[in-house]
Amino acid sequence: MTAEIIDGKAIAATIREEIRQEVAAMQAAHGRVPGLATVLVGARKDSETYVRMKKKACAEVGIASFGHELPADISQDELLAVVEGLNADPAVHGILVQLPLPDHIDDEAVLAAISLEKDVDGFHPLNIGRLSMKRRDPLFVPCTPKGCIELLDRSGIEISGRNAVVLGRSNIVGLPVAMLLLHRNATLTVCHSRTADLPAMVRQADILIAAVGRAEMVKGDWIKPGAAVIDVGVNAIDDANDPRGYRLVGDVAFDEAREVAGAITPVPGGVGPMTIAMLLRNTTDAAVRAFGG
Amino acid sequence: MTAEIIDGKAIAATIREEIRQEVAAMQAAHGRVPGLATVLVGARKDSETYVRMKKKACAEVGIASFGHELPADISQDELLAVVEGLNADPAVHGILVQLPLPDHIDDEAVLAAISLEKDVDGFHPLNIGRLSMKRRDPLFVPCTPKGCIELLDRSGIEISGRNAVVLGRSNIVGLPVAMLLLHRNATLTVCHSRTADLPAMVRQADILIAAVGRAEMVKGDWIKPGAAVIDVGVNAIDDANDPRGYRLVGDVAFDEAREVAGAITPVPGGVGPMTIAMLLRNTTDAAVRAFGG
Repeated sequence: MTAEIIDGKAIAATIREEIRQEVAAMQAAHGRVPGLATVLVGARKDSETYVRMKKKACAEVGIASFGHELPADISQDELLAVVEGLNADPAVHGILVQLPLPDHIDDEAVLAAISLEKDVDGFHPLNIGRLSMKRRDPLFVPCTPKGCIELLDRSGIEISGRNAVVLGRSNIVGLPVAMLLLHRNATLTVCHSRTADLPAMVRQADILIAAVGRAEMVKGDWIKPGAAVIDVGVNAIDDANDPRGYRLVGDVAFDEAREVAGAITPVPGGVGPMTIAMLLRNTTDAAVRAFGG
Repeated sequence: MTAEIIDGKAIAATIREEIRQEVAAMQAAHGRVPGLATVLVGARKDSETYVRMKKKACAEVGIASFGHELPADISQDELLAVVEGLNADPAVHGILVQLPLPDHIDDEAVLAAISLEKDVDGFHPLNIGRLSMKRRDPLFVPCTPKGCIELLDRSGIEISGRNAVVLGRSNIVGLPVAMLLLHRNATLTVCHSRTADLPAMVRQADILIAAVGRAEMVKGDWIKPGAAVIDVGVNAIDDANDPRGYRLVGDVAFDEAREVAGAITPVPGGVGPMTIAMLLRNTTDAAVRAFGG
């Protein structure tokens, strides 16, 4: 048996088309569209790329985007003033502050300054706090973890009552996706670098979320036959056969794992496209709330 | 082999004595002592008992306590005004709003109104959010979960790298203790009513935290030989031989489990006494911070 490939690119395209239609209907009904403000501090190449991709994705579905590129030496107070301005701007429904911020700026203070109603990245400490409690629904869920759950749901994979193993415990992916799985009634296990017998723990997973950032660490014989494998890792490894001299692989040894798993995401083309689709989803939800449905 | 009994009563007494000496030293150095404000809304018998026990425990270690008993029909705004007053009161270092609150009051709004620096119960949504993220230390950790970890530490039980299983996922105990174990580098599993094969999951636990509130649900043969068992449950069961007609038991079948476990808390006399000791600890820490060390 070879695993079903969970085609994140196709699923994300479907979601983007759903959003495009919603936005068009919103424009027709209210004469207004959702607006996303992006805030980029400094000139990190990777951050610039991410922000550019997000703005392009907005444009494709009809969401307005407002780019704020700020100097790396901006003071925290100046940055907070920018955020306050965006909080007050009725054309802005979502505010995305691209992380990481320079060292002289306190991330948490900046994230906490974003209006809860515009926190489309879901990293406001209050939204994180609500995510970490039962029956305290956050207004927004962080995009990559939300994308992982959406991939499972749209592939018809049952979560409730099943053993979910999360590899990794980052604030951005591992911890929030763990909370989402638990709220969906999975039996949750979180593994990490200190886990004693990682292969044995992973082998219990009906659902495996790999988010450690180590190239092809999870081997085929770690996978429970029939498991659903969501691979969040994106790792560059040397490849002389590739014109770029490298290629991207996940945290899971894909070719081995697909022989055992029931369903698996490829890298690239799995979780990656979902992150931006979920940002568009959150921004549109914010606008729906602002427009009163 | 019979398990070592983790004597929560004795450990809590040791902690209370440590705090008593700290408070005496504080009084000598600053002429001031820590102060705890308790806020009780309505006349639930159980809540009245808890508040009375907390005030008595304060008195025994030299912490001042200030009781606020408010009518059940107090408005949310009036209650928030009381909290604001306590936030501003320099004699008050910790504010404890006894839960549950009446239905017409929004718990989260009240907990969020408590000054972060006085949130000795650790239930402010920002403290919960920080608890749920790596490297975002909360100012205060909720008392019962903190007490569970303290019992392990003071019994010399290693947490890092070991399999910890938490039974139950309440906001008060299960979820926060799960985060604490994960931050201490345990491999974490959270089980609950939807878990498929509970005995098999529990059998993997080097450390078991039982917090489901079901009398003697965990049987002796669910316990891994040598495991540390922390039983948070307090359940009343009928007992014709007891003059009260009932007795208190934990979530773990104690007599069976002690034959298998390496260490186990009794009920009563295990976790129970630790909760109040941790409240005194948090209140004293708050005062130390307020006095500048």
